Amino acid sequence: MTDKCNGCSSQANCSSEPEQCGVEVEATLVGSRNNIRNVIVVMSGKGGVGKSSVTGLIAASLARMGKKLGVMDADITGPSQPRAFGITGELGMKATDYGIIPPQADMGIKLISINFFLPHEDDPIVWRGPMLAGAVNQFWGEVDWGDLDYLIVDMPPGTGDVPLTVLQSLPVTGSVIVSSPQDLAIMVVKKAIKMAQKMNIPILGLVENMSYAICPKCDEKLEIFGKSQGAQVAKDTGIDFLGSLPWDTALNALIDQGKITAYESPEINKMVENIIRKIS
Amino acid sequence: MTDKCNGCSSQANCSSEPEQCGVEVEATLVGSRNNIRNVIVVMSGKGGVGKSSVTGLIAASLARMGKKLGVMDADITGPSQPRAFGITGELGMKATDYGIIPPQADMGIKLISINFFLPHEDDPIVWRGPMLAGAVNQFWGEVDWGDLDYLIVDMPPGTGDVPLTVLQSLPVTGSVIVSSPQDLAIMVVKKAIKMAQKMNIPILGLVENMSYAICPKCDEKLEIFGKSQGAQVAKDTGIDFLGSLPWDTALNALIDQGKITAYESPEINKMVENIIRKIS
Repeated sequence: MTDKCNGCSSQANCSSEPEQCGVEVEATLVGSRNNIRNVIVVMSGKGGVGKSSVTGLIAASLARMGKKLGVMDADITGPSQPRAFGITGELGMKATDYGIIPPQADMGIKLISINFFLPHEDDPIVWRGPMLAGAVNQFWGEVDWGDLDYLIVDMPPGTGDVPLTVLQSLPVTGSVIVSSPQDLAIMVVKKAIKMAQKMNIPILGLVENMSYAICPKCDEKLEIFGKSQGAQVAKDTGIDFLGSLPWDTALNALIDQGKITAYESPEINKMVENIIRKIS
Repeated sequence: MTDKCNGCSSQANCSSEPEQCGVEVEATLVGSRNNIRNVIVVMSGKGGVGKSSVTGLIAASLARMGKKLGVMDADITGPSQPRAFGITGELGMKATDYGIIPPQADMGIKLISINFFLPHEDDPIVWRGPMLAGAVNQFWGEVDWGDLDYLIVDMPPGTGDVPLTVLQSLPVTGSVIVSSPQDLAIMVVKKAIKMAQKMNIPILGLVENMSYAICPKCDEKLEIFGKSQGAQVAKDTGIDFLGSLPWDTALNALIDQGKITAYESPEINKMVENIIRKIS
């Protein structure tokens, strides 16, 4: 065998001399245009702390700065990004020789999610690990992302197949950990931090989400999710604290309307500037 | 081969006549004392909507009625039950010939969770699907549950390996679906409902958690998680509505203190009476 045999499907059973072979092997073009400079993974371990919101907000903030953005919804069994970015309904997904064409949201943010391939958005993906991991690998290698400054990956809860595959197979620039103030949530979040540390994935820092809520009637700042302790958790686990985000009913309403890109806040922008500084 | 060969480790390569065999085969005793009359699975699809709280509250309410209870924490990568029931620290787990001895919480509630086997509660379980599913099977078959009226199973988020294994391998009496009011959560919860329906698992009904919160300052009932729509979702998906639960900071404080059994509410008791009626 020589280099000439690479990619030939008859390679294993071929008895010809490579020099005499007349078969023209066509190189695959899938993924060949992809040039993704930074991969940022948003993880938590715990479900329901707002990984998906934080993913969408980071992406929107970066796009607003003029960066080229992609969002990979790696939560295969519980995808949120299509709703948050308002890309739902019959999409008629298409592919070119370069891979699957990712739908685009506001500001040209490219998005891929398993829900784009389902007849109904509430159809379940009842798959075991290898299939789930396979989907993530396809989202990485078989999507025509093109040129991106940042790909933000929204992880599922837990530390099982999908998080493991993302951290092992993708060239992760860094991870953002999302927590909430409840002690119970923090214990599980620490599992994700330890997982990233064990796998030598750089941790960009911790975001405490749901730090407080604002009473729509009396404007009181309510610590209904528990006493904020993000800064302390970050310190205890030896990672940086990126800041706190409130539980904002306005944000949730925008997400339910598919308009996450319309939400802006100084806290998010500060957080994102911090992230950029760390990876550049 | 005859019945006499059952359980003999040499079975596959044996050339003896069963009648002449002198090997005494010892029957395994693991799991042999288990007599579990009802298995109730608490699932959602979505993370962070309160599956674990609902699991613990149902178990405590049933135990208060004098029933014999067990709780299986099937959320292997994000276990919450040890904290909620206050069973943490060095446990020195032991086993008898009948299986692993499950630690007991208040009112004799037997509990099994992966965290009982970890040196530190925040150590991550970085496992792929087959290992995760294996743990669930061990929690079922290799734990000395003894005689139980109810085993309540706390499911992880998603519709992957662990939920699939629980629904396929355990003799599930019925499932309780937990949702929260956000549209986005409901879309994912519907995936879990469809999964259970596809697998012919009886659905006992839907619980809407986080229906509202109470402002600790002005006592206003706040729909900070979105407009309550549990009854409508239940109707749309053809399942029963079991009721709404508020976001109660008192409950969360009790969970963080390991005292979930100290929390009582008429809503929970009504819900549990409803469940009992459905399965008896």
